[in-house]
Order: sequence, then C-alpha cells, then structure tokens
Amino acid sequence: MNKGLFITFEGCDGCGKTTVMKLVCEQLVKQGYDILQTREPGGSTIAEEIRSIILDKKNTLMDSRTEALLYAASRRQHLVEVVLPALKENKIVICDRYLDSSLAYQGYARGIGIDNVMSINSFAIDKTFPQLTIFLDLTPEEGLKRIAKNDQREVNRLDLEKISFHQKVYEGYQILIERYPERIKVVDARKEIKEEVDDCIKLILEKING
Amino acid sequence: MNKGLFITFEGCDGCGKTTVMKLVCEQLVKQGYDILQTREPGGSTIAEEIRSIILDKKNTLMDSRTEALLYAASRRQHLVEVVLPALKENKIVICDRYLDSSLAYQGYARGIGIDNVMSINSFAIDKTFPQLTIFLDLTPEEGLKRIAKNDQREVNRLDLEKISFHQKVYEGYQILIERYPERIKVVDARKEIKEEVDDCIKLILEKING
Repeated sequence: MNKGLFITFEGCDGCGKTTVMKLVCEQLVKQGYDILQTREPGGSTIAEEIRSIILDKKNTLMDSRTEALLYAASRRQHLVEVVLPALKENKIVICDRYLDSSLAYQGYARGIGIDNVMSINSFAIDKTFPQLTIFLDLTPEEGLKRIAKNDQREVNRLDLEKISFHQKVYEGYQILIERYPERIKVVDARKEIKEEVDDCIKLILEKING
Repeated sequence: MNKGLFITFEGCDGCGKTTVMKLVCEQLVKQGYDILQTREPGGSTIAEEIRSIILDKKNTLMDSRTEALLYAASRRQHLVEVVLPALKENKIVICDRYLDSSLAYQGYARGIGIDNVMSINSFAIDKTFPQLTIFLDLTPEEGLKRIAKNDQREVNRLDLEKISFHQKVYEGYQILIERYPERIKVVDARKEIKEEVDDCIKLILEKING
C-alpha cells in the first residue's frame, strides 16, 4: 500500500499550516499509511546546534548570506539523518517547510535572490526535491488577522515593516508556484478547515496512486 | 604607499605555512605596509561558534556536505566582519587558508566535487576572490617528514589512510593551480626558509606595485 514519498507544506505565517498538517497526518494514519511528520531541525542534534546559532539573539552581526548557508546546512543534516532513512523505509514523509521557505524568505524577501539561494540549497538537497509541495494560500493580511484573533500579544510584534516583509514572502511564493507548477500545488486556506484538509488529502492520494 | 589587497596562503599540512607567513608579514610591516594577518574564524564570534560545531568530536554523524556548508558559512562571516572592513581601510589582508582549501580538501579529496563546493563558496564570498594566492609547494610525503622531525607524536596520528588523503589534497591543489594561473602562484617550499620568504615578498610587491 505504501511507497516512499516526500511531501512538504509551505505558506506564510498565520496560514494555519500546523493545524492542517496535524489533521492531514492523522487522517492518513487512520487510512493505514505509514507517515513521518517532521520539521527542520527535527531532532537531529547537529541540525539543532546549527539552528541555535541562527536563532541566538546575541548574534546581531550575522550576515544574511551566513544565515542562508546555516539554514542550508541544517536542512542537509535533517535530510540525511531523518528524511532519507524514512524514505528508504517506504514511509510518507510530511515536512513542515523545506527548500521553498528559504527561497521565499531569504532568496526573495531578504533580497539575496532566489537563484542564489537555490544554488546553495541544490548543494544541500542534492536532487532530493519533494514530490509534492502544498502551498496553503492565505495572504499575509489575512494571516495576521488570524494571529491577532488567536493571540493578541503576537500581533503587537508584527509592526508595519514586518507586514511588508511578509508581503514580500507571499510574492516570493507566487514566483515559485509559477516556476514549479508540477511540484507546487495551491490549496485555498480561506476555506473551512475540513474542506481544506480534504483538498490536501486529495492531492496526496493522487500522488500516492498516480 | 598602501592600497587594499587580499592575499591568501595555501598548502598541504606540514608545508611550513605558519612560519613563512609570520616572517613575510614581519618583513612587510618593517617596510611600512599596513598588514592584517588573519585566519578563519579569526575572532568573529559567530564564525567561531560555527567552527566549534564542525570540530566537535561528538558530531560523528556530520555529513560531508553539511560540513562544507558550515565552512562556507564561517568563511562568509569572517569575510564580512574581519576581511572586508580591513580592505576598506586599505590594509593588506593576508589570510591563512581561504576558498582553495575547501576546494582541495572537501571538493577534491573528500569527493564532493570541486565545482559543487565552488558553487556554495561563490555564494559565500560573493566575488571577493583573493588578488593573489600563494601556494607553498611541498608534497605530502615531504610535509609529513617535516612534521615527524618536529614532533614525533604528530606523525603517529598520520596513518596510511591519512597519507593517501593528503595526496588527494595535493592533487586537488594542482588542479586549482592549472585552473587559476593568474591568481595562484607557486613557491617552492623545499628551499631555504629565507629564500622562500623572499619569493613570497617578491610576488606580493609585484601585486602591490603592479
């Protein structure tokens, strides 16, 4: 019934990725599929050590290219230690953010350039592209409203500069969707959650059975 | 008298790089040049944190591509924090190992491929190639003999497998010398130290005055 399949979820902050992924995975497990749900650094000690350098607030001098290289290094190690072994065991690996997040956030929104960030990520992933990437489509404005509804404190940190940054991230994703139409599929995240989960499941089953 | 100039020294282990660089820098300072002698991570806290992950002996699961990405990240941060500011102040920056070490050690000797390792280093250095790279030419066999002469304990750790690895590093450097004849200049490291230092100074002054 199963075969190894690598699926990633992408989207802007507030798009509901965590909730949707959880429900999608639960439903697939119920249907008997062997699922590994993961996210970088995903329990790899080395990948976690790399992430802690990126996230350390003391490191204010960090250059944006250094940051992109560290994300690529963390991605590589998570891939080798977590994703590839699971694919080898014919699991369906469902990963919260991967390659496209770096391309949208760092390549496009931070201005390093999508092709530049792609070059180091090509080195990191060494041809292990996801077979399917689901983009949960919600504009940053709508995403921020959701965050505000859920947690008033969160929106206080999202000032105007940050909103324009998230708009650039969204634009970056639009470029990637045009560039990789076979791989990246868009799911409308304004729908009711049940319908949205059904859309994702449908795409995944098409890939499994196709 | 001075202008900003970026010079790197390369060579196999045991070639005498540390000693030669020290004497070269002393002589250039005596002649009135404004020199910054450095090596990665070179006092950048972030670059040092990255290096400590690479060198941590607990990290036995580290993939060779992760390692290459971390070296590139450390290089980037050292470049931005240390090298570029000094070049802006018109200093002559003399750096112990740079780009070519990654190409020879990881690209060629570890088998990742020179072009693959070049792609992530191109991202890291963003066109800041050294204007001059001095390769201190000593075969690994001769280098290991020198190390044995200086410190008997060192040679015990250099078993046969390691000798073949260092031979591959040497071969990698030969490929780079052919590929970048304008940038990489070879100095015979079997000469008397005084003569060798004079050869290096001559190359550097040609670059300064050229």
